[in-house]
Amino acid sequence: MSQRPETPLLDRVQTPSDLKGLSDAELEQLAQELRAETISAVSETGGHLGAGLGVVELTVALHAVFDAPRDKIIWDVSHQCYPHKILTGRRDRIRTLRMKDGLSGFTKRSESPYDPFGAAHSSTSISAALGFAVARDLGGASDTGHGDAIAVIGDGAMSAGMAFEALNNAGHLGKRLIVILNDNEMSIAPPTGALSSYLTRLYAEAPFQDLKAAAKGAISLLPPPFQEGAKRAKEMLKGMAVGGTLFEELGFSYLGPIDGHDLDQLLPVLRTVKSRATGPILIHALTKKGKGYSHAEHAADKGHARAKFDVITGKQKKAPSNAPSYTKVFADALLQEAAEDSRICAITAAMPDGTGLDLFAERYPSRTFDVGIAEQHGVTFCAGLAAGGMRPFCAMYSTFLQRGYDQVVHDVAIQRLPVRFAIDRAGLVGADGATHAGAFDVAFLANLPGFVVMAAADEAELKHMVATAAAYDDGPIAFRYPRGEGEGVEMPERGQILEIGKGRIVREGSRVALLSLGTRLSECLAAAETLEARGISVTVADARFAKPLDAEMILDLARSHDALITIEEGAVGGFGSHVAQLLAEEGAFDGGLTYRSMVLPDTFIDQASPRDMYAVAKLNAEDIEAKVLQALGVEVLDKRA
Amino acid sequence: MSQRPETPLLDRVQTPSDLKGLSDAELEQLAQELRAETISAVSETGGHLGAGLGVVELTVALHAVFDAPRDKIIWDVSHQCYPHKILTGRRDRIRTLRMKDGLSGFTKRSESPYDPFGAAHSSTSISAALGFAVARDLGGASDTGHGDAIAVIGDGAMSAGMAFEALNNAGHLGKRLIVILNDNEMSIAPPTGALSSYLTRLYAEAPFQDLKAAAKGAISLLPPPFQEGAKRAKEMLKGMAVGGTLFEELGFSYLGPIDGHDLDQLLPVLRTVKSRATGPILIHALTKKGKGYSHAEHAADKGHARAKFDVITGKQKKAPSNAPSYTKVFADALLQEAAEDSRICAITAAMPDGTGLDLFAERYPSRTFDVGIAEQHGVTFCAGLAAGGMRPFCAMYSTFLQRGYDQVVHDVAIQRLPVRFAIDRAGLVGADGATHAGAFDVAFLANLPGFVVMAAADEAELKHMVATAAAYDDGPIAFRYPRGEGEGVEMPERGQILEIGKGRIVREGSRVALLSLGTRLSECLAAAETLEARGISVTVADARFAKPLDAEMILDLARSHDALITIEEGAVGGFGSHVAQLLAEEGAFDGGLTYRSMVLPDTFIDQASPRDMYAVAKLNAEDIEAKVLQALGVEVLDKRA
Repeated sequence: MSQRPETPLLDRVQTPSDLKGLSDAELEQLAQELRAETISAVSETGGHLGAGLGVVELTVALHAVFDAPRDKIIWDVSHQCYPHKILTGRRDRIRTLRMKDGLSGFTKRSESPYDPFGAAHSSTSISAALGFAVARDLGGASDTGHGDAIAVIGDGAMSAGMAFEALNNAGHLGKRLIVILNDNEMSIAPPTGALSSYLTRLYAEAPFQDLKAAAKGAISLLPPPFQEGAKRAKEMLKGMAVGGTLFEELGFSYLGPIDGHDLDQLLPVLRTVKSRATGPILIHALTKKGKGYSHAEHAADKGHARAKFDVITGKQKKAPSNAPSYTKVFADALLQEAAEDSRICAITAAMPDGTGLDLFAERYPSRTFDVGIAEQHGVTFCAGLAAGGMRPFCAMYSTFLQRGYDQVVHDVAIQRLPVRFAIDRAGLVGADGATHAGAFDVAFLANLPGFVVMAAADEAELKHMVATAAAYDDGPIAFRYPRGEGEGVEMPERGQILEIGKGRIVREGSRVALLSLGTRLSECLAAAETLEARGISVTVADARFAKPLDAEMILDLARSHDALITIEEGAVGGFGSHVAQLLAEEGAFDGGLTYRSMVLPDTFIDQASPRDMYAVAKLNAEDIEAKVLQALGVEVLDKRA
Repeated sequence: MSQRPETPLLDRVQTPSDLKGLSDAELEQLAQELRAETISAVSETGGHLGAGLGVVELTVALHAVFDAPRDKIIWDVSHQCYPHKILTGRRDRIRTLRMKDGLSGFTKRSESPYDPFGAAHSSTSISAALGFAVARDLGGASDTGHGDAIAVIGDGAMSAGMAFEALNNAGHLGKRLIVILNDNEMSIAPPTGALSSYLTRLYAEAPFQDLKAAAKGAISLLPPPFQEGAKRAKEMLKGMAVGGTLFEELGFSYLGPIDGHDLDQLLPVLRTVKSRATGPILIHALTKKGKGYSHAEHAADKGHARAKFDVITGKQKKAPSNAPSYTKVFADALLQEAAEDSRICAITAAMPDGTGLDLFAERYPSRTFDVGIAEQHGVTFCAGLAAGGMRPFCAMYSTFLQRGYDQVVHDVAIQRLPVRFAIDRAGLVGADGATHAGAFDVAFLANLPGFVVMAAADEAELKHMVATAAAYDDGPIAFRYPRGEGEGVEMPERGQILEIGKGRIVREGSRVALLSLGTRLSECLAAAETLEARGISVTVADARFAKPLDAEMILDLARSHDALITIEEGAVGGFGSHVAQLLAEEGAFDGGLTYRSMVLPDTFIDQASPRDMYAVAKLNAEDIEAKVLQALGVEVLDKRA
């Protein structure tokens, strides 16, 4: 453990109200202590570091000027919320971040009244804040009262269509609403859209100290000492193009850009906005991701997400891994396919590193497309590419693909266009918790006519599925794989093209058949071992395909065993439901069949290690064993609750 | 049938290449004939009239200047595509529009090579066109070759986040791409967002004939005769605010506004763009929805969608209805609840008429929110309203709710916020076909932890469900109901609050249990009658809830009958799958249970009457009867294929 920093002022802060008595100079010191505490805490827990460091001063200023929880401060995505958590009564638990039973790595309504709206997916904050603003004006009741609604949103998140929709609606409604654009020119990856270039031009043309925004009529909003400077600035700006136009055209007053690390700018601007704002206002603050911690500032990702690390050296403490990650296996396999097929291209929605496509972008820059945080556009763009004769791989996390669901149904499935969906982070993901779980994709894809849906049981299977998807031109095809490391199996030189809709028997038995989809296969094999020791002979099959099902294999398993149990890393409505539908249609239940379907439970599971989360979900080997015994009516001595 | 118009020029057009030999004056005449033919055709078929009339000249100009199908013309939403269909080899079938086995009311890849990308949901065209443009530049193979990619998108569709995402990405990539903003200040309903106000300002300040766009440096793009006028215009514009900034800030060249009904403006602008454009360009064309047909121009909805009508009088021929529509029942019931509860508010995404919320907006304007075509924002806005103490009803069609799926999961379900989802157009919808079917909502909602999901069996049930949703504050709740008229049942004075998770037995029998969710209930009752006549005693139950299930009732039905059959108006993965999961978990299959689940088939069903579509789906009374007989192993004489 690193030595804890000295934090005399921070030690006096239990809730944001304790900031009210502090002078501006003390707030400055508090910010420094808060930064040190944030670095120290994340060095012990790991987590999102850079984003929090970028908003330390903004967090202090917001809590000094506004009155949370009456005022609703909504952090977009909220991986920048650690300093906010420290100031809002959660410092004593900050070193449990992202751990089992610890603080969430994101804002969470059930965790604190200071988190009025939970987040984790991007670009929701303006919509939510507008909801609070309207509820306030309509007299809605809130346990914490109603005050200002404040959305803090990054420049990357601002590029998503949803944020634009919210700005468009807010500008129209004209309610008092505060949006702070936290412009660090760096979301998770460098942003690539036209909006980003626009924002860069805005401040490239306007050094902060010129207070260029003043020229836009914002002078009356500024406190007196600023008005002086503003008048000078206005002179300078004559004839220059003025900033903020895009936001003003959508009905917002625009203030900025200001230096988001300078409390001498932040505090007066926020105070003035608080006392005088009438309609929607956008404050454009420039910040640095990783600010104040050189090991983060100088990293390529600005310290976006970190394992535990040494504060002095910045060195991360990662356990050595025995197997490649699924993400890396996917990326390598795709590179191999792309080397022989110039039609293959790769699409990511602002996650080039997370999806492994950074490797693809290096080798094939002209065939790689980072569309920004824009899953809706990304999916339809892929459909267009496919219609135009390319072989697009749309690489998205399961949870983020939900953002493009209508486009998957409408532009891909209905048109039977051969878009390949590489679905990473399938199943439970660990420290990111419920908001990042990939629980629903099999259910929402497998009921779409014409879709092929696969799940990899191990990293070699994943390689085969990449090859299979590359070769498949008859319609949409998806393959899912989990976060984390593979099983350590031997890797084939090349991926083989799998026969569509054919599973495989992995272990032959006679009494019980375990039918697995995805990486629970190893748990099934482990359960089979234990059951065999009890004298129960177990067949284990890997379905490979949730759609089309291997009807022949499944019906054969049903006929030749006393019991058939499906296991998957997904919610009800997916693989098991399709199997049940098949069994019912074929009359397999008519004469009696001990059938069970093990799926994710009907709860959102809080963060823990993936193994611990699967224990909660009752999908580990011991749970499979217990389910078999229960289904067979075998008395169990070590009964679980 | 109205008398067919005289169309000597149009009669000579089989494909767009036939336009190449025509003079500009002849194209003008062709446009008039095309307009008359469109009106005549829709008077016979019913359908979307106003949008097509608004783009008659644009359609002629595009096909005269560009070379479809090599050039990809992509109509956004595509309810304006009838004139395009007439010019592209489908005139002989234009009077089968939206009918069984007839032309689709939308563009459709499988229908014609001139429809490079199908549509029906809004705001996808720029993404798709960008896909074609990139595929072209990467050497993708297309049966029809590769030329220009052209998206034609309305001002309403442009307000959706997805369009913004696409502009943002296209502006960044810089590929040659043509976007035509068809600005009729009127999508389906009057648009309400800030973007709409912005567009209004753009042309309020700039009469077309001034060619204000010229002042933006576009002069060199214009043909010589225009440059003269442009120079004059430029003089006039000195010192004026200039238009198009928003689009130019996103990286597009902006041309306009031009008069979208004036071929003397359209043809030269398109010709110039074709010969000189390098990067992405946006042409802003002003049009009138319903243009040239006074009965449409003067209608409140500008002739958006029409039943068959008399061309001379404009009078629509609607069959008299015996029962109120479900939409109207929902709207009235909500008004009744809102009269007693000021927390109730109503949210629509640009469908105030379609959802019946126009009535609500009249009575409670301050509690009604039309967020524009922005389902993502709309859902999260509702979540914010709920968190702020309101009782929001989010009224969306099933198919459009897909657009807000991630927000439903993330902002509503994970946070257990009591947003009420009123899901109209559940099940098969008739003339709008597969793209508007509400097939997946039960599947994608019922597997979300904490969600309550109901389906109304008739209009009285719908009224109860509105009351139930209004009273329910424990988390998210949804109720679905179909397009069209109710059953004609007696309506209660007030909706009753249903017990959550309790179904009802509608008819008592002994041998077979039919368990229905939704409006197939009447088909189940009809089937029960016929079966009874054959000596098979049938119980019919209305589940009411897909989640939580009435486990007690369902297990009791399973125990006390030889066969249990579920029936729903949705795809596999929904109600029946949850029932199967329950039966499996409870061991109901172990000793044998003749169980079947009747769901929508694994195909996208083309347009026809709802009854005909359900015949294809095999979900009508006779299909239920056949399923029962087949399940019981009873020999059937009148076997169906």
